[in-house]
Amino acid sequence: MLRGMESGVREPVAGDAFGRVLERCRDAGAVPGAAFEVIERDDGYVAAADAVRYFTPAEELSGLDRWACERARGRVLDVGCGAGRHALALRGMGRAVVGLDASPGAVRVARGRGVEAVVGTVQEPPPGLGVFDTVLLLGNNLGLLGGREQARTVLEGLAGLVAPGGRLIGSGFDPRADGTGPGRADADHAAYHAWNRERGRMPGQVRMRVRDGGVATPWFDYLLLSCQELAGIVEPTPWRIEHVETGGRDYTAVLAPDA
Amino acid sequence: MLRGMESGVREPVAGDAFGRVLERCRDAGAVPGAAFEVIERDDGYVAAADAVRYFTPAEELSGLDRWACERARGRVLDVGCGAGRHALALRGMGRAVVGLDASPGAVRVARGRGVEAVVGTVQEPPPGLGVFDTVLLLGNNLGLLGGREQARTVLEGLAGLVAPGGRLIGSGFDPRADGTGPGRADADHAAYHAWNRERGRMPGQVRMRVRDGGVATPWFDYLLLSCQELAGIVEPTPWRIEHVETGGRDYTAVLAPDA
Repeated sequence: MLRGMESGVREPVAGDAFGRVLERCRDAGAVPGAAFEVIERDDGYVAAADAVRYFTPAEELSGLDRWACERARGRVLDVGCGAGRHALALRGMGRAVVGLDASPGAVRVARGRGVEAVVGTVQEPPPGLGVFDTVLLLGNNLGLLGGREQARTVLEGLAGLVAPGGRLIGSGFDPRADGTGPGRADADHAAYHAWNRERGRMPGQVRMRVRDGGVATPWFDYLLLSCQELAGIVEPTPWRIEHVETGGRDYTAVLAPDA
Repeated sequence: MLRGMESGVREPVAGDAFGRVLERCRDAGAVPGAAFEVIERDDGYVAAADAVRYFTPAEELSGLDRWACERARGRVLDVGCGAGRHALALRGMGRAVVGLDASPGAVRVARGRGVEAVVGTVQEPPPGLGVFDTVLLLGNNLGLLGGREQARTVLEGLAGLVAPGGRLIGSGFDPRADGTGPGRADADHAAYHAWNRERGRMPGQVRMRVRDGGVATPWFDYLLLSCQELAGIVEPTPWRIEHVETGGRDYTAVLAPDA
């Protein structure tokens, strides 16, 4: 059933739902159980998860996240910085980090925690952002590649933000691998992958929005993709995959500019 | 904006979303952080809450809940029993309790915890349910009164389930009182109350559904009402308010059949 058949049901108001959740979690002391992020997929699937994971202390980051942070060199851009969990870990390691997030609320939270953060996206970086020796897309933020077409634009935009000899380090997971949680494989997800293929989209090209109270972000594409799919997407761009570190379903890829 | 303007966005499949959440919480050991109940209101408002509250042990029930359980006499019907938190507390006090819930999943969970529970509603009780000395509508389940018209049907149905001399004990809260969480008063809720009045509904007459993964319950009306509104609703029915116990925003009302 498509929407609109339920008469009288209203849509949420457009707004920074993600930032609201982070601010509420922070206001409650960034403890578990205080604020939940609700995501809605365009097939009617919803999932809620505790927002406290965006506040994970440096010493509790995953092995893959720590691996990525240790490889960050020089001036670092943390794309989709959220509440700043990776940026704070990097600062603790003495790195100079700038956080970038499309959510003004996320940027307020990150700044309040001492992170130098700015509102913007890779496609529309704020003026004067400069170039970086390392650009990070952690927390599955390879998802910001969005899809086959969007990925090309994003990767070309990133090429303009990376200094000569710089690297892009991003994390993701194969949406068809077993697991739990939003985007992980189960019957709902398998049906979604099939629907995506019917529509000419990549299987893990998730059209979603974040909802909080009466507010929702715009719908956006978030791309869950295997290493193999990433290789196919990177191929026609100014990047090449230099290294892939794996941990169970998850992986972290290091991309270098084409020679 | 009304639904349907976002082309291609699908509705969830109709199903027992509430029961799914309870079963997942039980399967994880009924611990915090394992399963979240997502409710959606017809104005686009969503809220998520940890389902572990439906598994509250007897010794951790609120003062008002314990007050209600202590007043339950004879054979007890627990309407909207959920995972059986009140039924189990009553069994611990030596009461004979039957749980009733519209959710087959909730009934499975309650039964698995040792509660005698059946699927059904007050409007459509299962055959052979019999009569009770005490009927409970705890956990804000005065909300099942639904609205002005539905309340009359529900209260007349309940009159047929109560033995002579029996009592109805139900809990609720004033939706206009300050507080947090679904149904509590804030800007979103004040706007919703106003919209309800425009539509000829009671301010706290919440049209909502539970969503979980790709599944949603049907839309239903859940009535949040002050003691004063409850008195107005009870007046034309075969019931009268015998006593109201209050605790902050919350109250528990004892109703007796009209003499």
